[in-house]
Amino acid sequence: MNELNTTLYVSRKVVIVMDELELNYRSIDLDYSKGEHLIPEHLKYNSNGRMPTLVDHRNGDFAVWESNAIITYLVEKYDTKGKISAMSFEDRMHQLQWLFFQASGQGPYYGQAEHFLLYHPTHVPSAIERYQKEVLRVLGVLNGVLSEREWLVADKCTIADLSFVPWNISALRFLLKDYPGFDFEKDFPSTYRWHTAMLQRDVVQRINASWLQAIKRRDEK
Amino acid sequence: MNELNTTLYVSRKVVIVMDELELNYRSIDLDYSKGEHLIPEHLKYNSNGRMPTLVDHRNGDFAVWESNAIITYLVEKYDTKGKISAMSFEDRMHQLQWLFFQASGQGPYYGQAEHFLLYHPTHVPSAIERYQKEVLRVLGVLNGVLSEREWLVADKCTIADLSFVPWNISALRFLLKDYPGFDFEKDFPSTYRWHTAMLQRDVVQRINASWLQAIKRRDEK
Repeated sequence: MNELNTTLYVSRKVVIVMDELELNYRSIDLDYSKGEHLIPEHLKYNSNGRMPTLVDHRNGDFAVWESNAIITYLVEKYDTKGKISAMSFEDRMHQLQWLFFQASGQGPYYGQAEHFLLYHPTHVPSAIERYQKEVLRVLGVLNGVLSEREWLVADKCTIADLSFVPWNISALRFLLKDYPGFDFEKDFPSTYRWHTAMLQRDVVQRINASWLQAIKRRDEK
Repeated sequence: MNELNTTLYVSRKVVIVMDELELNYRSIDLDYSKGEHLIPEHLKYNSNGRMPTLVDHRNGDFAVWESNAIITYLVEKYDTKGKISAMSFEDRMHQLQWLFFQASGQGPYYGQAEHFLLYHPTHVPSAIERYQKEVLRVLGVLNGVLSEREWLVADKCTIADLSFVPWNISALRFLLKDYPGFDFEKDFPSTYRWHTAMLQRDVVQRINASWLQAIKRRDEK
């Protein structure tokens, strides 16, 4: 496949899934700080204005947003052999359960920790503590489950697992960096084992490396 | 159907969907303030510990948690005629997109508004403002879409629409009650029309009434 079949307003999570499935795409990154996400070309496909947004040119320019809806669409349509997705109905429902936990329990709370650590106009220690504790709670819920099995669903690495990678990378690099006594490997050994295994996948390694480079370039500015 | 086919650790959202589908269930309400959600009988089915949790006795005690995963399971399994759910693949993916927007964009942010208005140990006006503004943003995103069509997906009321009802009721009763100049009907006429139409459904009316009674009883204690 050499033609570009898809336009993706990017997110790391969706890029990981597209690369795992060897799907090609034209990638567009809009700059929130300049309000670019609100341009008509983007809002036409995404009324919420928040990336990622996928436009599938192989399916009549079908557009879908919300990262976990996008990756569910991608595996339902293009992962028919189940390389990174559950196949049975019950496993697919559990895959969806973990995607909702990621979308509602990990993303927003890790995001609030980041907000109060880095961007809030005033320093609010009680809010930082609230959200750092929630990050720890999520790592603990995962640890409980992953101490009993290798992957969240269907005995293999699926989008349910991969969906947690980007924010967990951020948690370890930023959100819990200075948290008193925090030791990822010691405190959450099963989550650590699982997260480390995913970091070693070729696709995740490559995307993580290019993301770290982008951060470095930004910080050097 | 007179036998009780399902055990549901409750949430208003799931109850609305089960009643719309005329599914019967034994309902269990655990008291978070007493830590009851962490009892082994519940954690056995739900490693996250947060309600709702569904246990389907007609499907080998299949257990699933996260409200939007539960209602997707219910319609995929029991709403085969599409009474309150999308039928085509593309519509189902858009239904999922809105469920993820509800789960990640409405629930957590409305929940943080509630937390900082009612429960946070200190009064943090900048946090209250942040989350009230996000409630308004969500109402605005919905308004933009609903000014162009009656329902979010598939030209009918589906779980995508219904999923927004409980938190929008809370927004109007609590979260934006004292917000300067807020006028739901005037500011967001299409969201108002859509929300009001759902409130008039028999099932939603009944569940809303019993919820308001429960709040009244609690407040009178």
